[in-house]
Order: sequence, then C-alpha cells, then structure tokens
Amino acid sequence: MLKQRFSDNAKQMRNSEIREFFKLTEKPEIISFAGGFPSKECLPSEEIREVSSRLLMEAEEEMLQYSATEGQKDLREYIVDFMAQKKIDVGIENIMITSGAQQGLDLVSKIFINPGDKVITEAPSYVGGLGAIRNYQGDIISIKVDENGLRLDLLEEKLKELTKRGQSVKFIYLVADFNNPTGLSLAIERRKELLKLAKKYEFLILEDDPYSDLRYKGIEKPNIKSLDKEDHVIYLGSFSKIFIPGIRVGWVIAAEEIIQKLILAKQSTDLCSNSMGQKLVTTCGREGIIDDQIKKLRQLYCSRRDMMMKSLKEYFPSEVRWTEPEGGFYTWVQLPTFLNSKDLLFKAIEENVAYVSGTAFSNNQGQNAFRLSFSQPTLDEIEEGIYRLGKIIKKELNSSRVRNQRCIK
Amino acid sequence: MLKQRFSDNAKQMRNSEIREFFKLTEKPEIISFAGGFPSKECLPSEEIREVSSRLLMEAEEEMLQYSATEGQKDLREYIVDFMAQKKIDVGIENIMITSGAQQGLDLVSKIFINPGDKVITEAPSYVGGLGAIRNYQGDIISIKVDENGLRLDLLEEKLKELTKRGQSVKFIYLVADFNNPTGLSLAIERRKELLKLAKKYEFLILEDDPYSDLRYKGIEKPNIKSLDKEDHVIYLGSFSKIFIPGIRVGWVIAAEEIIQKLILAKQSTDLCSNSMGQKLVTTCGREGIIDDQIKKLRQLYCSRRDMMMKSLKEYFPSEVRWTEPEGGFYTWVQLPTFLNSKDLLFKAIEENVAYVSGTAFSNNQGQNAFRLSFSQPTLDEIEEGIYRLGKIIKKELNSSRVRNQRCIK
Repeated sequence: MLKQRFSDNAKQMRNSEIREFFKLTEKPEIISFAGGFPSKECLPSEEIREVSSRLLMEAEEEMLQYSATEGQKDLREYIVDFMAQKKIDVGIENIMITSGAQQGLDLVSKIFINPGDKVITEAPSYVGGLGAIRNYQGDIISIKVDENGLRLDLLEEKLKELTKRGQSVKFIYLVADFNNPTGLSLAIERRKELLKLAKKYEFLILEDDPYSDLRYKGIEKPNIKSLDKEDHVIYLGSFSKIFIPGIRVGWVIAAEEIIQKLILAKQSTDLCSNSMGQKLVTTCGREGIIDDQIKKLRQLYCSRRDMMMKSLKEYFPSEVRWTEPEGGFYTWVQLPTFLNSKDLLFKAIEENVAYVSGTAFSNNQGQNAFRLSFSQPTLDEIEEGIYRLGKIIKKELNSSRVRNQRCIK
Repeated sequence: MLKQRFSDNAKQMRNSEIREFFKLTEKPEIISFAGGFPSKECLPSEEIREVSSRLLMEAEEEMLQYSATEGQKDLREYIVDFMAQKKIDVGIENIMITSGAQQGLDLVSKIFINPGDKVITEAPSYVGGLGAIRNYQGDIISIKVDENGLRLDLLEEKLKELTKRGQSVKFIYLVADFNNPTGLSLAIERRKELLKLAKKYEFLILEDDPYSDLRYKGIEKPNIKSLDKEDHVIYLGSFSKIFIPGIRVGWVIAAEEIIQKLILAKQSTDLCSNSMGQKLVTTCGREGIIDDQIKKLRQLYCSRRDMMMKSLKEYFPSEVRWTEPEGGFYTWVQLPTFLNSKDLLFKAIEENVAYVSGTAFSNNQGQNAFRLSFSQPTLDEIEEGIYRLGKIIKKELNSSRVRNQRCIK
C-alpha cells in the first residue's frame, strides 16, 4: 500500500552502492580504499577544542541559537576573503552557507530541475551529484572524460544534437579539480572553452569544488568560477575535505538572483545550517587554523598518494591502468574489459581490502573500473592493501587466460 | 532569462513573511514577540562547554568525521529511550536523525508529494510546514481549528467530499501540542478520532512535536504517535526548543519502509547531519543535562507565559481575544475583524514592539490576527511590550469608532 503512495521523486531514488557498501567495509580488520573520508590521524581536534571552549564563553548565542538561513554574516565575509585567494571576486550577497556541499547540489537541483529536464554530467561522475539530480527526476546525459577532463568535442556534439531537437540543457555538473572518482582535472583551455559553450548554448555550469586546495603536484589551475565574467557558473565549496566534515559547512556562490531563490528553498529545507559549525569555521579560518590544516593535509595526502602510485606500479599487473592524480583523494583503476570490478570486490573483501566498483559512478558504465581512495589508510596499509588487490587481479587474469586457452583448444 | 529557467517548484516558493520580517525586528531596542527562538538567558553553554571539551578528547572521530546518513547509532538508541517516556514504543530501525525537524518536513514532503497532491493542514498552521509542502507543489487544504484543535467534523466533511470526487489525501500535517501559532492542543478524544479517520480514509498523519515537553499547566496529553497501532503516524521530534537549536538535531519516527525511503532521500540531500551536534545531544541526554534543561525551561517559560496572560488582561481592550496556552511558546490574538494586523504592525514597530501578523500562517486568512511569542522577552519586557501594543490597539479602535460615527452622521 505504502509503495503506491510514494512520490515519483521517491520512486526514482536508488540505493547508492557506495554508501550501502560502506557497511561491509566497516569491519576494523579491513584496509579500506572505499570511503572518501578525510584522514582520522589529522583531525584538528585540539585546535577545535580550544576554539570552541573559548567561543562557548564569548559567543554563546552565535554558537547555540538559530542563525540566518543564508548563513552567519561573519562566515560569509570570511568566505569572500577565502575566495579572493582563488581570484573569485564576490560579495556576501553572492554567498549562501549550506549543510555541506551536498546540500548545495540538492538545492540547486531543487530550484532548477523539472522532471525530464536535461542535465549533463561527466562519465564517471560523483555519486552524490547524480543522486541529487535524480531525486528531482533530471534526465542525466553523461559525457565521457579523458586525461584532460570532460571531452568538449563530445559535449558540443551533444549540445548541437539537442538544439536541433529543440531541447536545452539546464546545467552541466562537474568536479573540475581532482574529480571524484577519476582524480583528474579539466585542462585550462577546456575551462575557457566550456564557458564559451555555456554562453553559446545558454546553460549554467555547476562547479563542485571540494578538492582544489588539496594539490600535491603540478601547477594550479584557475577555478572555472574565477574565469566566469557573466554569471554562468554556480560554485560549490566545502570545508569537509580541507578542515572537518562532521560540522557540515559548505557554501554556494552564484548570481544574487539565484542566491535569493536558494535561500527561499533552504528556509523550508532546514531553516539554517548548524550555528556551532559556522562559528567554528569562521574563527578557525580567521586565526589561520584552516590554512595550517590545509598545509598539513597536503603533506599527509601527498605521501599517501605517492605510496599508492608506487604500490600500484609494483604490485598491479601491466594489463591494468590507473590515473595519476595531482591532488584530491582518488585514483581510478581500469581493468581489462573482460574483468568485472564488482565480482572482484567480493574476493577483495574476503582478503580484507575494499574499494568502490565503477558502476556506482555512472548510469551503465564502469563495470571494469573501480575507485581507490588514498585519504584514509596509512602508508603501510596502502602498500599492503594494493599488494593484496594486485594478487587477486593477477589470479583472476590467470584463470581467465586458462579459460580462454581451453576455449581455443 | 534566469527566471524562466527556475523549476516549477522554485516558482512556487514564496518569501516567508515571518522570516523576512525578522530583519526589521533585529534592532536591539525592539521588544520582539515575533521569533520562535528559545530564550537566550537559559542556554546551557557551560554544560555544553564541559561536555564538548571532553568529547573532543575522548571521541574526536564521532565529533568531527562524517556520520551515517540515518544518524549516529547511540543517538538513535537514546531517542528510543526518550520516546519510551512518552509511551512511543519504537526501535532504532524506526528512527532517522534530521537536521532539525524542518528537514523532516522537507524529506517527508519530498518522498510523498507529487505536484497537485492534496495535503491537509490546520488553519492557521506552522509557516515552515506550509513552506515544505508548497516547495513540492502540494495542494494545501486548510481545516479550521477551535479551542480543542483541528475541527474533525470539518475534516470528515472535506474527506467525504474528496472521496466522492475520487480524490485522496497524502497526509495531514499538524502540531497537536501547543500549536504554532495558536498555542492550543488537540483534545485527546480528537486524537483517537483522527486515527480512526486516517484508517478509514487511508491517509498518513504527520505529527510535528517540538513543544509537548514544554507543558506548564494542565494535564499531559498522549502524543498521537503513542496511540497509533497501525503505523499511520509519522512523528517529528526536535531538540531545538527543549535543548538548543544551533546544532540542528531533530528526528523522524515512522514505519521502517518509510524510514528506508527517507534515508535514501537524505543521502542526496546532505549526506548526514552534523556529527558534533549528534554526539553532544547523546552525551548531554544520557548525563541528564537535557532533562534538567527541560525542567529549567518549563519554569522560565511558565513565568513568561503567566506574565503575558496577566499583561494581556490588563492592557488589551475587551474587544480583543487571545488563546490561553498550557505550554509552548505562543498565544494567538484576534482583533475585531475591521482591524488589520499587518497595518497595525507598522505602528507597533514605530513604538519598538513586534509580532508576526496572522496572514503568515495560512493561505488567505488571519488578516485580523497575530502571533505573540513569549519565549524570548524578559518579564519586564513582556509587560512593557504588551502595554505598548495595548495602547496602539486602543488608539486604532478609537479612531475607527470616530470614523464610524462620522459615517453614521
């Protein structure tokens, strides 16, 4: 009886493989490359303890009362300055605080998507982005990526085709820096080109940017938002990866008219984001604690990323390919097409090692791919985990070779 | 250009008078009866300071990392016990943590409402409930209340009419205890009758319950959920009014099938509620701090409620009527029909006193009503504020009498 009563939105909602799967990986003996969680070794708890203790004396109302739907004013002012470092030039009227960047994804989808509206995403793309779009019945069109990010030739082809059919695109959603799950970034030239396409074909760009401050190699790329002169870009920021996730503080940057609509949507969604987290971010930000944390994290994750690259080279067979990220949390592994990453995962879990299989990140692709996250395991665990995975893959390759030879005979 | 791109959901979103209005009432010299905020004099900051300082040493991961979408397990266990005190018998599988009860309103609306679906509310009703339903284009049917809450005779009449037309109701939304804005509660007999109607006409009851622990007079009434034997009720709880609002911790209780769907919806909405707030609630709850806070608040608000009743009696003219709440934050004032509460509000603000005009709480009613909240102002401020309001109302009544006499002449 209940099932029939759910809304069409609800009927579309799917169990996210990635999140369901976490339950399996919670056994303490597992070396998990699955979750996109920050490292537990580097949580700034001592600093937060000192700051929150002080704020609960000096600013108890700002910590404990409701706050404005759009977010605390001093936090938005801090974000203005934080964004200026990235050459993103905005005022507080362009900023709304969200409960993590995920809420930004939800609210942007809520105010733009009617059922059936076209939304373009990368293939593969972030699970939570796909989920937010699906929850409003957006019609997702996936465009392939290569080592320089989204394939703009394929994008323009698709845009032309849609235009011919009289259809338009509401927005394109992407993680331009250290993409989740590929770890790759959109080339600078493509960022400029994408903005031109946005103007020509009249769509918005939803730039989700949790990772760009976590660069370990190579040269910084300008955020798409920093190149945007005509308000084509809605930018999502988050303190989850560069500071702490448990306080759920993110932000949206957009044209004032969009921010006003987002505030209206947020009012009926959760009234306001948690005040304690907002005030903590502002104070830790202004006192340099966040900048220090970013420096520490860069160092820590760089060593983990390097260990993962080294181990992959050492223990994975030559038939397997993987991306070499310059930052972020992830590398994307591609197996020979005849191997299935989901089947392999069950074997991996038997050996107490875990990853997320590729199908989670797109509609019907990625069967032979998987995402490895290097943010959580220690250096030793990374080496040991990759060694175990390598052994499993080699065994699979061998047994399929044997099967093939038998077939040939 | 942008305006055309917004979704149909977004086009429906209205500026909430109540929230917009807060900006006017933020002047420090104003005595505000407008906001439904807990008292700032009674924030348990010292207790929270001690507990959070301890938890940031002993449980840093639970405080700072992501947590499960459904909420931390120990918090859900605490809520099982908390609900048992109200004779609501549930397991953790029936509980999902939300970012304030407002998120419960949003997510329940999201998983049940298709555009045009009928949803019944009280008239007048909580602004945030109306907003959440409207944001998914629910078709709101308002049913009048009297001093015993929702008029079930009118409700059944409406249900019969809808059934005749082959239409059904998705759910009925109500605040049964110390309603916002009326301050009144649904009579016990009506609670039982409502459950019978829910069974007969197959609709769900969304019981929003932020206030039932804040009773200052009279005899406790069982929550509708505690009388519900067949999972007709979805219950929303909140720590905002009985503990602190700034951590945004609320919960939903429902049949497991509904909770599973809500978890899916929440995954793509904000991943999880803030961990720090959840862990603080659990610990403060288990250590008796929340129970103590409830006791303190009952005492504080009872004296404010009494002062408001006394002042209304003393300073308001006899043509004006108001409700006498036994708990919660509000009283609902009705002026003679020829007075307009919005016009009056501008005069009130000139005299540095504020309330929320009645039109905020329904579609097109309440022009001659307004809500007074007694949770924030001190006893002296309550007396002074009601005195000023009384003077303004008397003056208005006099000048309309003079106008009427002139007309008669």
